[in-house]
Amino acid sequence: MNKLKIVFFSAILFFLWSCSQPKEQAAGTEQSGTINENPLPSWNEGETKTAIINYVNDVTNNDSKNFVPVADRIATFDNDGNLWSEQPAYFQLFFAIDRVKAMAGQHPEWQEQQPFKAVLDNDMQELAKHGEHGLLELVMATHAGLTTEEFETIAKDWLATARHPKFDRPYTDLVYQPMLELLKYLQDNDFKTFIVSGGGIEFMRPWVEEVYGIPKDQVIGSSIKTEYEYNDGNPVIRRLPAIDFIDDKEGKPEGINRFIGRKPVFASGNSDGDLQMMRWAASNSLESFMLYVHHTDSVREFAYDRNSHVGRLDKGLDEANEKGWTVIDMEKDWKVVYPFELNEN
Amino acid sequence: MNKLKIVFFSAILFFLWSCSQPKEQAAGTEQSGTINENPLPSWNEGETKTAIINYVNDVTNNDSKNFVPVADRIATFDNDGNLWSEQPAYFQLFFAIDRVKAMAGQHPEWQEQQPFKAVLDNDMQELAKHGEHGLLELVMATHAGLTTEEFETIAKDWLATARHPKFDRPYTDLVYQPMLELLKYLQDNDFKTFIVSGGGIEFMRPWVEEVYGIPKDQVIGSSIKTEYEYNDGNPVIRRLPAIDFIDDKEGKPEGINRFIGRKPVFASGNSDGDLQMMRWAASNSLESFMLYVHHTDSVREFAYDRNSHVGRLDKGLDEANEKGWTVIDMEKDWKVVYPFELNEN
Repeated sequence: MNKLKIVFFSAILFFLWSCSQPKEQAAGTEQSGTINENPLPSWNEGETKTAIINYVNDVTNNDSKNFVPVADRIATFDNDGNLWSEQPAYFQLFFAIDRVKAMAGQHPEWQEQQPFKAVLDNDMQELAKHGEHGLLELVMATHAGLTTEEFETIAKDWLATARHPKFDRPYTDLVYQPMLELLKYLQDNDFKTFIVSGGGIEFMRPWVEEVYGIPKDQVIGSSIKTEYEYNDGNPVIRRLPAIDFIDDKEGKPEGINRFIGRKPVFASGNSDGDLQMMRWAASNSLESFMLYVHHTDSVREFAYDRNSHVGRLDKGLDEANEKGWTVIDMEKDWKVVYPFELNEN
Repeated sequence: MNKLKIVFFSAILFFLWSCSQPKEQAAGTEQSGTINENPLPSWNEGETKTAIINYVNDVTNNDSKNFVPVADRIATFDNDGNLWSEQPAYFQLFFAIDRVKAMAGQHPEWQEQQPFKAVLDNDMQELAKHGEHGLLELVMATHAGLTTEEFETIAKDWLATARHPKFDRPYTDLVYQPMLELLKYLQDNDFKTFIVSGGGIEFMRPWVEEVYGIPKDQVIGSSIKTEYEYNDGNPVIRRLPAIDFIDDKEGKPEGINRFIGRKPVFASGNSDGDLQMMRWAASNSLESFMLYVHHTDSVREFAYDRNSHVGRLDKGLDEANEKGWTVIDMEKDWKVVYPFELNEN
């Protein structure tokens, strides 16, 4: 339930969040060469890029003592804050809040019923009083009851129309260009890439194939329970108002074991919620690579780490430094953050 | 718990089962051409083979109104009785019984404690008295407590040494040659093939890659709960004595939704436990293909259907006939059943 607590506080944060932050300013980028010549064109030369390329060259070299057979080339990526942004709050929370507002017409009782009233009144101080339980009520009311097909349509429609409060762009524009290149680079080297996220599995699946080139069946996430209904010969799977699995912290290696059945050799995350996944990959008897995204760029994205309520990176940062895992300094290591910056130069 | 009931009764059946059945006799096979020229060489010409090939040609033809995009080419296969044999009892039950015997030395109390005593005494009448609960005790005692790595080693070792009571061969020899060819044929046509079995997911994963060419992460099965342990920096995942998920009947479409996230266009099974999966595939808006294996061959394999306690095919057979799904008549449609027959001709 820690994830929910974090999500909840991120909601509060969001509504208290002043719009005083500087508007994004695309960094100068020098796109030289094609992907084929330079697999990571949006990465600045330096230790981080070199470490990634050296690792891939090493484990895909048949003559290397560190050679990793193709079947074992499993790469796992957190999503929120690792492949796309997560500030000022997890994007899925914006979805839940928008759903409450969209559904309010069919729920006149919400006008007087907390915590829905608080959302409808934009009264986050009131919402805060309802704590985790209140947030859970929001998620269940907006994410359950529907069939999986209905939910997919609603999530897709929302993603097509909703806009990020800071960038005023669709949320799916806010994926990290350097990470897209890293995914492609690994896929080209016969790594099977998976998303392993605390976010909802059915909130991610509608768009990950198109945006990340990752098939739906290679997405692991948090889930609510479901139930098959025969429905007079038109079977559906209905989403139930009960938590099935929280894919965060210890849940990440458990989910990896359940869905993938082997340890990753490459793990990438950005928060303490990814630390168990990192340790799981680090314990692989095959040569493995652990990669943390450190949010250091207050101009192009957001800068946060040890004290953030969303995506806190504290113990993970200490352990990465102690164990020599690779840490991306977003400000220093990335030429651009978002794909749209490529068109602005 | 129906699965457990079936497994339990199959145990009883096994021990009551007389060895009076005729020894297998390899049918004459005429292997002509290579896999490339004839993708299903162990299938006799006829309606079944033609239906499969026509379907694949149709949905992979860009000009067909039934064309299925590659991302949607999801094929799901039951395992027990569909890709390998399941008589006289599910092979995993033989494993559990052998584990009780192997572990008895560390459990002197089992000499007097039911239902273990019944297994050690080969007293299946006594075991029967303990019903489902007794079977659950056997499975939990033999499948839980270990780390996932320990369990994988034990399952692999067992598969390498244990022998089927009728055929006196390793269990992994008892896979169906025609189904191996079908898997390969679909894979060659860009179908992503998944196992969706009531069997234990971690009992299957150690061998499916080598035997079926199906990666571990494309296996869905029943599971027990697990727990991540940091273990002083050498993390493990420990198997707990509690059911997590039964991947049978309604569980199959639920498991498919959870693990794959899209409906199959091709579903293959052999029992009423697969019927919900068949209906799920049949409800696909894309052109889909439903394939039942009907065990009609008492000479080369086993003949059973409506009255069998293991792999009962009753309602499924009626619905297949009613809806025009394809039903394999093993005796008529398959030139050989097992791969080893190829070497005997």
